[in-house]
Amino acid sequence: MIKIYGKNCIYEAIRANSKIQKVYISFEVSKKDLKFLSMLRDKHIGFETIDKKRMDQFFGTGHQGYGAYREDYTIYNEGIIDEITGPAKRLLLLDGIMDPHNLGAILRSVDAFGYDAVILPKNRSCSITETVAHVSTGAIEHVKIAYVNSLSTFALKLKENGYWICGTDASGKDNLDTLDLSLDLAIIIGSEGFGMNKTLLKMADYVLSIPMSGHVNSLNASVSTGIVLYRTRKDGRIL
Amino acid sequence: MIKIYGKNCIYEAIRANSKIQKVYISFEVSKKDLKFLSMLRDKHIGFETIDKKRMDQFFGTGHQGYGAYREDYTIYNEGIIDEITGPAKRLLLLDGIMDPHNLGAILRSVDAFGYDAVILPKNRSCSITETVAHVSTGAIEHVKIAYVNSLSTFALKLKENGYWICGTDASGKDNLDTLDLSLDLAIIIGSEGFGMNKTLLKMADYVLSIPMSGHVNSLNASVSTGIVLYRTRKDGRIL
Repeated sequence: MIKIYGKNCIYEAIRANSKIQKVYISFEVSKKDLKFLSMLRDKHIGFETIDKKRMDQFFGTGHQGYGAYREDYTIYNEGIIDEITGPAKRLLLLDGIMDPHNLGAILRSVDAFGYDAVILPKNRSCSITETVAHVSTGAIEHVKIAYVNSLSTFALKLKENGYWICGTDASGKDNLDTLDLSLDLAIIIGSEGFGMNKTLLKMADYVLSIPMSGHVNSLNASVSTGIVLYRTRKDGRIL
Repeated sequence: MIKIYGKNCIYEAIRANSKIQKVYISFEVSKKDLKFLSMLRDKHIGFETIDKKRMDQFFGTGHQGYGAYREDYTIYNEGIIDEITGPAKRLLLLDGIMDPHNLGAILRSVDAFGYDAVILPKNRSCSITETVAHVSTGAIEHVKIAYVNSLSTFALKLKENGYWICGTDASGKDNLDTLDLSLDLAIIIGSEGFGMNKTLLKMADYVLSIPMSGHVNSLNASVSTGIVLYRTRKDGRIL
């Protein structure tokens, strides 16, 4: 069971028909958001109206008057490969993203740009916490997430399955804007501080870089991921 | 005077020849980062070595053993227009960005993609705080920042000065990928929750949108800003 909170999170969980044990709303929401109340009734989801103080106790700040207890998210393992079908498959491999705010923001981009799944290594990764769910503003309800034992073993398996492995690195020589978008792509993003694991980098068919012209030339991890996903989305050909 | 902390922040402040009153480092840094010590001596910047406990007291968490007191950042006003020269000028107008983490991440993108300045309205904006400086990982040292009384009055002035005003909105009909990058552009990004102010939207010569194909279809504000800045950078023509 996981606590979720915030208007968008609760709305998306309900829209996605996720298993919700109970919804809590503040008196203010119960007066103002009649659309929400009728949605709860239509879907036969029990709810309780409580005062702001108890909402704060249950859900901390940032709940906006909406909270719920939700069944744990479905987490995939190496078997995720068999779940992805169709042409121009898209996987995002996150190598060492530890910050829940970055992971939450990345899940929004993964949903927005139609990526098929996100893969993280079991070690050195952020877990799926309440903060991740909240920062994702509900996008987490629509994104397949897998934790694997080893990213490099998994990347090998992806190669055998016809994926092209795309590393990302400041030294990358391949052009983000001219990648063949009809291919099945597995994009690897490294950790913010240390970049990509060298074993993974060696396995890459392409090493992409984001052209930059500033002084510091480093981007927030969720920003660089967003740019790469935007430019490699399935329907991302430039007209 | 503003406190700055974290390795990148302090390095960039020194590299940018910013006025620093005093640097504090932990004993660990004083032993390990000899490059830093010689840089301080070369630039005649006074420093004190203190224990971790006092570092934590002065700079909170996240200082990595590096802290300093720095002169306040130079903040411009409407006069920023006269500071921007050269072809293909680029301004970013932030309409109601309140979150210091978003603003800090945006400053990194502004630097990385060679934008000339960031403009915020005096009301309804995040101030330049220690958190903003820290999250920017030092990019703030290289970015011109202006606070203006009214974004719409300022946008009018920009029009008179030959800038093309580009709003951003989910309903935008103009293609981010085919904008004429030889123009002087002022890009406006709205607040995360409420989007762009309608007065500003009406003044826009272009209204850009980011094509998305997911369920939630909203991005973190710093991610969407990063994508727009990436695609509209001066040398961003697709080869």
